[in-house]
Amino acid sequence: MAKVAVILAGCGVFDGAEIHEAVCTLLSLSQRGVQYQCFAPDIEQAHVINHLTGAEVDESRNVLVEAARIARGEVTALEQLQAKDFDALIVPGGFGAAKNLSDFAFKGTELTLEPSFHRALEAFADADKPVGLLCIAPVIAPLIYGQGVQVTIGCDAEVAAAVEALGGQHIESAVEQVVVDEANQLVTVPAYMLGPDIASVAKGIDALVAKVLELAAK
Amino acid sequence: MAKVAVILAGCGVFDGAEIHEAVCTLLSLSQRGVQYQCFAPDIEQAHVINHLTGAEVDESRNVLVEAARIARGEVTALEQLQAKDFDALIVPGGFGAAKNLSDFAFKGTELTLEPSFHRALEAFADADKPVGLLCIAPVIAPLIYGQGVQVTIGCDAEVAAAVEALGGQHIESAVEQVVVDEANQLVTVPAYMLGPDIASVAKGIDALVAKVLELAAK
Repeated sequence: MAKVAVILAGCGVFDGAEIHEAVCTLLSLSQRGVQYQCFAPDIEQAHVINHLTGAEVDESRNVLVEAARIARGEVTALEQLQAKDFDALIVPGGFGAAKNLSDFAFKGTELTLEPSFHRALEAFADADKPVGLLCIAPVIAPLIYGQGVQVTIGCDAEVAAAVEALGGQHIESAVEQVVVDEANQLVTVPAYMLGPDIASVAKGIDALVAKVLELAAK
Repeated sequence: MAKVAVILAGCGVFDGAEIHEAVCTLLSLSQRGVQYQCFAPDIEQAHVINHLTGAEVDESRNVLVEAARIARGEVTALEQLQAKDFDALIVPGGFGAAKNLSDFAFKGTELTLEPSFHRALEAFADADKPVGLLCIAPVIAPLIYGQGVQVTIGCDAEVAAAVEALGGQHIESAVEQVVVDEANQLVTVPAYMLGPDIASVAKGIDALVAKVLELAAK
């Protein structure tokens, strides 16, 4: 039975992991009888956003502690993730992927990756184990897989241009449609970069999970 | 097309709405082409729980603001909910249903309901519009529907005894199985009162959504 690691960037679309994407990922894995373990970096969030008003608030929250809300307490510090213990890795989106796991939201193409996240991604890439990236998360792929890596973030011109500037190849895609870079064992899907509703997003995520598991079984 | 109100009790199983249950409810509605609107009371949470350690922390959070994380910002203050605008109401579980929407977790059978929650439930009951309650939420049903109302919370002996002490009739149920009180237009399902996994919980919630919509269409 396959075992999949899922990296959460907090809890909430504007400052953490996109909750629908994270839950739909876990649901699809569970429906396929696949075991999963959630991980998150034990760091402070870049900031805290009031999700009702969109305003930044004067508060600090820890990414691992907030991710535990999605994981019902069952989440492990990302620095403990060992690629050898898993068949694949999936990273849901949300601004947390661009604010906590990386700083793309603040620095654009000058982005760097959070160290434990960088190490985890490198380990799965080095082991040729499949990785699934959702929503905005694919923007980090060129830093791991290098020139020519094929990804989608849907059809957002600005983010697609950033992917290309970083050396990646952006492929436009619909919300239900995954992009597969077979050479790199990388699967990406637009999710809420396109939306518009949770049923469409879930369909795309289920396709991503299916493809990641198919690659893991090879 | 049916329109359903969903009441969220915050964001996180131990002090708010159970996230998987809330998201699976929205997903099932969306997959069936049903419009939904989320609501939450504009009140402080009873307390804040660190979901990694289970410890209460010295922090305050607002139920409406936290619910906005699950609703991606699209949530309305519960006092604005008008039963006439909706065909049905669904309330996911999590401790928030027993800590924020009611005080069952603290007072047991001496529980009272949060005023805007009480008013909303009364309005749907008075209008004979179907209501779906998940997980621990069915424990509040006797306060609205009175003697003999039929509900399930799975098979937890203590909570089942509380339901009976309040005048309700508890019916044991499996996680995928709903209990329907046709006379009261009330549908309940155990969800994470039983678990054990998100796929099983989602199956039960999808059955609840289907039944609630069936009642609403009559």
